Amino acid sequence: MSLIQNTLEPKINNKHLFVFAADHGIAEEGVSAFPQEVTVQMVQNFLNNGAAINVLSNHNNIKLNIVDAGVKEHSISDINLINIKVANGTQNFALQESMSINEAEEVIKNASDLFVSKNNNDRIDIVGLGEMGIANTTSATAIISAITGKSVANCTSRGTGVDDQGLEHKIKVIEKALRFHEIDGSNGLEVLSKVGGFEIAGMVGMALSAAENKTAVVLDGLISTAAGLIAYQINPNVANYFVSGHKSVEQGHIYALQHMGIDPILDLGFRLGEGTGAALTIGLVDSACKIMCEMASFEDAGVTNKEAE
Amino acid sequence: MSLIQNTLEPKINNKHLFVFAADHGIAEEGVSAFPQEVTVQMVQNFLNNGAAINVLSNHNNIKLNIVDAGVKEHSISDINLINIKVANGTQNFALQESMSINEAEEVIKNASDLFVSKNNNDRIDIVGLGEMGIANTTSATAIISAITGKSVANCTSRGTGVDDQGLEHKIKVIEKALRFHEIDGSNGLEVLSKVGGFEIAGMVGMALSAAENKTAVVLDGLISTAAGLIAYQINPNVANYFVSGHKSVEQGHIYALQHMGIDPILDLGFRLGEGTGAALTIGLVDSACKIMCEMASFEDAGVTNKEAE
Repeated sequence: MSLIQNTLEPKINNKHLFVFAADHGIAEEGVSAFPQEVTVQMVQNFLNNGAAINVLSNHNNIKLNIVDAGVKEHSISDINLINIKVANGTQNFALQESMSINEAEEVIKNASDLFVSKNNNDRIDIVGLGEMGIANTTSATAIISAITGKSVANCTSRGTGVDDQGLEHKIKVIEKALRFHEIDGSNGLEVLSKVGGFEIAGMVGMALSAAENKTAVVLDGLISTAAGLIAYQINPNVANYFVSGHKSVEQGHIYALQHMGIDPILDLGFRLGEGTGAALTIGLVDSACKIMCEMASFEDAGVTNKEAE
Repeated sequence: MSLIQNTLEPKINNKHLFVFAADHGIAEEGVSAFPQEVTVQMVQNFLNNGAAINVLSNHNNIKLNIVDAGVKEHSISDINLINIKVANGTQNFALQESMSINEAEEVIKNASDLFVSKNNNDRIDIVGLGEMGIANTTSATAIISAITGKSVANCTSRGTGVDDQGLEHKIKVIEKALRFHEIDGSNGLEVLSKVGGFEIAGMVGMALSAAENKTAVVLDGLISTAAGLIAYQINPNVANYFVSGHKSVEQGHIYALQHMGIDPILDLGFRLGEGTGAALTIGLVDSACKIMCEMASFEDAGVTNKEAE
């Protein structure tokens, strides 16, 4: 925080967390234990203040924003739901690219504009990235394998409640898709377009924009870290603004962090997403800033230093 | 917290943290990088609200209490300093026992009474144990080696800023003292009396009393965990009330936790003591309770469960 704010007394006055939600065409391949309708149901739950991320944001004085980045057609009309979408979910990336390059760029720009608008209104010192989207661990795992070059088998875990057979199937779906697309992993935008998701595109845009505005970005689990990884491929400087909220139990997560040279803060066995690990870590980063600002030095406090012996 | 409070909606209304301070005769053996006067200087710093534990307690809404459990004679007269001491520091345990069994029992009782009095006044849901005492990693390491049976060399680390040569010396001092005392490691009170410290005795008393009153106890680093270990030898049931705040960089710490079957919550490379890791973890435990109380179930929120597929 001192490096980001270029001061020995870094301060956090305004904390935000954005949960980006979107649906995934790859869900058609049966890679998730939950039906696709859960995405929109959870969006409603966020808006009703009932999810884990609501509780943790309230508890840590974090302003929570829910963003529709590409949820399937639905009937939610809520003034608190921020709409940045250009399509009702991605295409099935087992058969074709998830989204066009144009669509990817458009959602990145919309999320970037969203950050700028909130930040202009009230300077954001730290922002957490959360997400919701049934089947999005499949997309995130494909992204991480494509960019880091680690094998799909080594990157893939169970997501939310997939069993042994489901895990084997998920690995095969991702391996086949990566062979089909022949992705250039060094090109973040290409990776996003071919196997990404719209909530991931939203987080990419927000990460790039936050870093450009010298705001710390707290990544959460597998999916937000996959978004961070794409942002890193687009502009490696963003890593200087990244904090990793927690170590996910998803295997690909640690490879993504290693690729960017970042260590996670918490290791609590979380596998929920939504930004829950990020919310807890924002509280810890706030504590760290308070230490820099409020603690007396040995000299101030009249404590004998060891050199004085 | 659910097990401790016997409810699925555990609550934390009142958080306390006690910092027990005392001096150590073993400091005469040159085991610390800091002179002994730093103990009382840091007590003054706590009372002036200038130390790390003050900042983190304020930030986490934790009521902080500073306890003189056996600081060397000093001139601090402060209404906020709680006095439970029976002696101005321990004897040098390289030469004789740190304190008599009577002294150990008396400080345990005083700390227990202190907990009961604060708890009767305003029910304490969670209590953190912190400490200050120059040379107290030497005492704590001796305690942990005596109780767990792990070798002194494996248990000993640098404390606050000891160099390579100092580390070798510290190991030799502890090894020699343990040979001299021929301690029965199964007898917690004997271990405390022979190689313990008065701040450690205070934490033992508070841990026993808190557990008896069904209050969660958050241990901090090496020294408070050594106190927890003595309490555990006296009454193994206390472990059901223990939370380990963080994984210390001190090697003996993890052996002490393993002996009690407890995993640490945070791993942030802390080596400060004072209760700093406990304070951060109290905030996280509070978050966990909020999740149990405030988060909607899938059923409440109308979210389709995976069994419904």
